[in-house]
Amino acid sequence: MTDTHTYCVKLADQALAASRELMSVPGSVRAQALRIVADLLDKNAPALEAANAKDLEAGRQAGLASSMLDRLKLDAKGIAKMAESVRQIAAQTDPVGQVIEGYVRPNGIQLQKIRVPIGVVLIIFESRPNVTSDAAALCIKSGNAVILRGGKEAVHSNKMIADIVSQGLREAGINPHAVQLVETTDRAAVGELLKMEGKIDLAIPRGGESLIRAVVEQARIPVIKHYTGNCHVYFHSEADHDMAVKIILNAKTQRTGVCNATETLLVDRKAADAGLLAKACQALADKGVELRGDEATCKLFPAARPATPQDWDTEYLDMILAVKVVEDIDQAIDHINRHGSRHTDAIVTRDLAASQRFIQRVDSANVFVNCSTRFSDGGEYGLGAEIGISTDKLHSRGPMGAADLTTYKWVAMGNGQVRS
Amino acid sequence: MTDTHTYCVKLADQALAASRELMSVPGSVRAQALRIVADLLDKNAPALEAANAKDLEAGRQAGLASSMLDRLKLDAKGIAKMAESVRQIAAQTDPVGQVIEGYVRPNGIQLQKIRVPIGVVLIIFESRPNVTSDAAALCIKSGNAVILRGGKEAVHSNKMIADIVSQGLREAGINPHAVQLVETTDRAAVGELLKMEGKIDLAIPRGGESLIRAVVEQARIPVIKHYTGNCHVYFHSEADHDMAVKIILNAKTQRTGVCNATETLLVDRKAADAGLLAKACQALADKGVELRGDEATCKLFPAARPATPQDWDTEYLDMILAVKVVEDIDQAIDHINRHGSRHTDAIVTRDLAASQRFIQRVDSANVFVNCSTRFSDGGEYGLGAEIGISTDKLHSRGPMGAADLTTYKWVAMGNGQVRS
Repeated sequence: MTDTHTYCVKLADQALAASRELMSVPGSVRAQALRIVADLLDKNAPALEAANAKDLEAGRQAGLASSMLDRLKLDAKGIAKMAESVRQIAAQTDPVGQVIEGYVRPNGIQLQKIRVPIGVVLIIFESRPNVTSDAAALCIKSGNAVILRGGKEAVHSNKMIADIVSQGLREAGINPHAVQLVETTDRAAVGELLKMEGKIDLAIPRGGESLIRAVVEQARIPVIKHYTGNCHVYFHSEADHDMAVKIILNAKTQRTGVCNATETLLVDRKAADAGLLAKACQALADKGVELRGDEATCKLFPAARPATPQDWDTEYLDMILAVKVVEDIDQAIDHINRHGSRHTDAIVTRDLAASQRFIQRVDSANVFVNCSTRFSDGGEYGLGAEIGISTDKLHSRGPMGAADLTTYKWVAMGNGQVRS
Repeated sequence: MTDTHTYCVKLADQALAASRELMSVPGSVRAQALRIVADLLDKNAPALEAANAKDLEAGRQAGLASSMLDRLKLDAKGIAKMAESVRQIAAQTDPVGQVIEGYVRPNGIQLQKIRVPIGVVLIIFESRPNVTSDAAALCIKSGNAVILRGGKEAVHSNKMIADIVSQGLREAGINPHAVQLVETTDRAAVGELLKMEGKIDLAIPRGGESLIRAVVEQARIPVIKHYTGNCHVYFHSEADHDMAVKIILNAKTQRTGVCNATETLLVDRKAADAGLLAKACQALADKGVELRGDEATCKLFPAARPATPQDWDTEYLDMILAVKVVEDIDQAIDHINRHGSRHTDAIVTRDLAASQRFIQRVDSANVFVNCSTRFSDGGEYGLGAEIGISTDKLHSRGPMGAADLTTYKWVAMGNGQVRS
């Protein structure tokens, strides 16, 4: 690719043309395309495994960390899961065409706010090849054209998945430019695409914080960000002790490498003094969690290591938990709003007023009462597959499904009205 | 102001603190603050006129165009209108706390999507001082803190209005930092504020295209754009001729300097040949509209001047209309999607299938059937005062009212649920 700019303009123009066509492709055809893609994924599983093996081999030679190789790997089970996910997305209710609001104005004009596809979406992601099929499926389900830019370590896997999707689209009679993979490894391509106002409507970066920062820095088109999560659980003075321990164990240890795992435990002074802090810390330590506490915590649970100021801002994604004693609910809320990442924060309490205060004042996408932060997830919310979890406040907040890839248009039906 | 950076950080920190407090200020108190502001505007009308006179005098000395001076001017009637607009916003339904969706998951968790304020909004605007009170009122109504950056030509007027708003907030017991005016004329301040991720949640520029482009270029926070409108009316082959003429006359001439005025008329070949083009052009010419036509138009209406390619992309905001003959509805749709600004486009037709095709395929915020494009307006839609008309697709599209200044949070109520 000698001319990255020309290549990117071509991709964007093709995507825009495909998106215009998709506007009038019925939901049944979009769903049928996805079912064909799912079947093709199953049918081509051995070839896809072979393509993936090439990526794994190149990764090993390049000295990729084992966790990276693990995320990159596609086996028969993983491919079956990808196909199943595409089938589930196909089976969802079609968001396109839903009437969000509708009313008649005094002058007789009938006004409706109708859900329509956004247009052209750019998704920039790292390592995991299953994002290719998930993102493509969610975009087609919602009537959008998508440009996919995957990590270079997954180049063979992504290419094969994209080819399978193209074939599925063609067989269903949909313009295959509706799903295009960026096939140059020139890093300048992302910067070019992020400036194509009027052709690309939205960028969604999925990956580590440095990737997301780089996208925001370069973008002149809207970006929905999915920063990772520094989630909190707060034990209120009126917390049920058994429930509190059960919730923090789950929130911290059920899976650690994910954005909805809890990273800081806040314990109300009264609950701490009543033995809840030591009880919870012991249960966590028994599970192998390293505890980093403030002074009050280390006093009540001497096995904890002293926390440093950075601990309150750290997303460990590991078996480590920061623990802090707070004087009251307002100090807990203030700590969360100051150090959290506006992702998911939970209170454990039996007190109604405390739950209401927490819900109202914690400025996060997901605010939970008496349940684990691990429920912050598109699947758990009943949205089906998710395109990510937005920590932004604009357009979509929290887990995003197919409906979050739509916008609306205002349609006015008149019979000759003019304005006076 | 020697240190613009320090000043901007202080503004943003104060706004963030005020926004956190506003999260739990009841709607009745927010509405009461606005009613006090409206009364204060009325009471201080003579002083405000005097402040405005200083701006007008400075503007005259600086050689501002008379259209600019006209937009800058505040007389007794204008001030009464500002107060009335604030009162109307106060009287609207409170968007904060509305439950957008709510359901129970199979595991018993009660999930609700609840409308909440966005947080801190930055509004950057030019000349018209009434934007100061309108924007402040819409932000307070929706529970947001706002930082206002007005044009330097309106500095005295804006300062006085902002002081009145502060007084109203204080009298209602609301932190006056909820509405702050940027009081440095250092141009670097806007760039600083546009990079305050985590403190400022949204920027809304209101003004000419060059202002908006500059904001997009500098911003690292989300921006909702209000580009002006290149609106179209399309006369379908099955248009009612009388209705068509009535609509284009209104869409072009009822008010010309506004974004929802029509700039291009597309006439279907059959309708043109049946006399509709000449009839409409004659009526427009009689009203003093200059017509710029393609070859076919000039043939049918020789008084039209030949259009140049730029005419199809021009927002005249004046008594000028571009006119083009199209072969069919698809050519009309293609022309609109190619040359329009995704603002407002209308079809005149008696044919149901044509209306449906137009609605589905025209990719604009507002798509109208058989009525004037001039209805594309927050007031006409029943939204009350508007913060602008978004030509973006993300978050909000078309006229934006107080509800468009909200986002949502997901609230989950459990009784000890953990994930397995």
